[in-house]
Amino acid sequence: MRKLINQKEHFIKDMLDGLKFHDQKISIIEDSIVVRKVKKESGVAIVSGGGSGHEPAHAGYVADGMLDAAVCGEVFTSPTPDKILAAIKAVDNGDGVLLVVKNYAGDVLNFDMAKELAEAEGHNVATVIVRDDIAIDNAEQRRGVAGTVLVHKYAGYLSGHGSNLQQIVEKVENMMESLHSIGMAVHPCLVPTTGEFGFDLEEDEMEIGIGIHGEKGIYREKSETVDKIAGRLLSELLPHNDDNDIILMINGMGGTPDSELLIVTKYVMEALEEKGKTVHKLLVGNYMTALDMQGFSLTIVSHNDELLKSLNAPTESTHY
Amino acid sequence: MRKLINQKEHFIKDMLDGLKFHDQKISIIEDSIVVRKVKKESGVAIVSGGGSGHEPAHAGYVADGMLDAAVCGEVFTSPTPDKILAAIKAVDNGDGVLLVVKNYAGDVLNFDMAKELAEAEGHNVATVIVRDDIAIDNAEQRRGVAGTVLVHKYAGYLSGHGSNLQQIVEKVENMMESLHSIGMAVHPCLVPTTGEFGFDLEEDEMEIGIGIHGEKGIYREKSETVDKIAGRLLSELLPHNDDNDIILMINGMGGTPDSELLIVTKYVMEALEEKGKTVHKLLVGNYMTALDMQGFSLTIVSHNDELLKSLNAPTESTHY
Repeated sequence: MRKLINQKEHFIKDMLDGLKFHDQKISIIEDSIVVRKVKKESGVAIVSGGGSGHEPAHAGYVADGMLDAAVCGEVFTSPTPDKILAAIKAVDNGDGVLLVVKNYAGDVLNFDMAKELAEAEGHNVATVIVRDDIAIDNAEQRRGVAGTVLVHKYAGYLSGHGSNLQQIVEKVENMMESLHSIGMAVHPCLVPTTGEFGFDLEEDEMEIGIGIHGEKGIYREKSETVDKIAGRLLSELLPHNDDNDIILMINGMGGTPDSELLIVTKYVMEALEEKGKTVHKLLVGNYMTALDMQGFSLTIVSHNDELLKSLNAPTESTHY
Repeated sequence: MRKLINQKEHFIKDMLDGLKFHDQKISIIEDSIVVRKVKKESGVAIVSGGGSGHEPAHAGYVADGMLDAAVCGEVFTSPTPDKILAAIKAVDNGDGVLLVVKNYAGDVLNFDMAKELAEAEGHNVATVIVRDDIAIDNAEQRRGVAGTVLVHKYAGYLSGHGSNLQQIVEKVENMMESLHSIGMAVHPCLVPTTGEFGFDLEEDEMEIGIGIHGEKGIYREKSETVDKIAGRLLSELLPHNDDNDIILMINGMGGTPDSELLIVTKYVMEALEEKGKTVHKLLVGNYMTALDMQGFSLTIVSHNDELLKSLNAPTESTHY
């Protein structure tokens, strides 16, 4: 199999052992939970997590200014409630814990169960559920995708600047009302634990509206040039947000080369300029991936001064 | 073709237009030369470049603390002497220009021709040629690969800290004596300008000693687990450097997911620790790629205080 792995059973442990060499400010507990080596003494602790395979999400964002812990499930599989509980207990300093959860049935269920267990032990825990993927019509069923990284950064900033748990929940919920994403792929990911491609896609096809595990999208059709793809994605995304002042993330799916992400950037930015939009901050890179999938997603959120300040604030994460 | 491009004839221009949106501190001249928007008033100007397809190299390193200009040829094709000359003229502030050239026949020839033309116009120009790839036995014929990025950073630092052209050449030549790299691939790159894979590799094969365009390596054999691959690469690399105090770069080839690069990191670092080596700085990421090739390279250079300080010094490049 064309994968750089040792034993597939040790995929997560091996990856986190590697991360520990790369980032000397983190520790690993219970083989699957990434925490800061120096626990925050005060302020709401921010915890996220989910299935692995989306690196650098979420483990790469455990750093001053962003997350306090990331709970890493197996590849594309939710972490179990006991691990999430262990993470909550490890990071709570008495100021409460915010769980940032992507909207997948398993994640929501397991984080919810861990929250109940933690509350029974006296922890103050709140949850925000990210549902930014507009490929799903029903707003309640929308998946959490790349926009989650902006939630990490915003929540981490608010925590570091004196907001309490209730205030962070309110501000993040408010921010998420204008947070929308859509993704596309030209090549599926090869899943290391199964040795199979995550889905099938012909050489000359693309899928628009795809999720970060390769879940079904809105259209599958013949590949197009990037200007047309950019136009198509924006025509799906912009009806959800009519603000002219926005923040934009162009996220690579893991196997997309830099050169192509930059070509995407050109055509997306030109199309937005034509529509009279002002992009107050542009993020381009691999933020929330699907292993080695080739493709990208666009995330748009309405601009406001505090959100912009939070996204520009320093963090020790080398992946943001 | 499963590529996110518009017209292949505009690949470089489109990519650089995108970079300009992403990095507001650069300008593009003659559609293919990246320079800082604000020219450095004093200090040796550092210029690099070569064929495109290795992003973020070199355009992503044009920033305070690293390069003053990057000359971008077509995909895997040397830039022409007139473009290199234009770059030299754009950045020379009177303190001279250092050309950092990877050892490929076309690059060496064209940078040399540009140097002669620039000298005829009164510019003070010197060249260092990077030959870090030990896959080639003959030291003179060795290719320049990922180690080039460390040369950019070191030279940029020296320039910013008062070294003149002659001093930078001497220090960089001295550093390059212990700078060695070796790469491997499990999947070839798809070249956007031809629509063809750069080379052939069966599903269950890997090639060790491969170059950043997919040039032939030392071995092609059945894929192995990462611990064995790490051991193999180090057994090629370490005979060239018996220092116990080293700096290590683990470089992704463009399409390698983060998770796999981290698994590589674990096994390489553990093997080095077993051999009694101390890694004073570890860099992990996509620094010098081959489009969407999947694989990695290892670069080792001997540690010294000034080199370490230079590699840890701030830069405005978001890719270092």
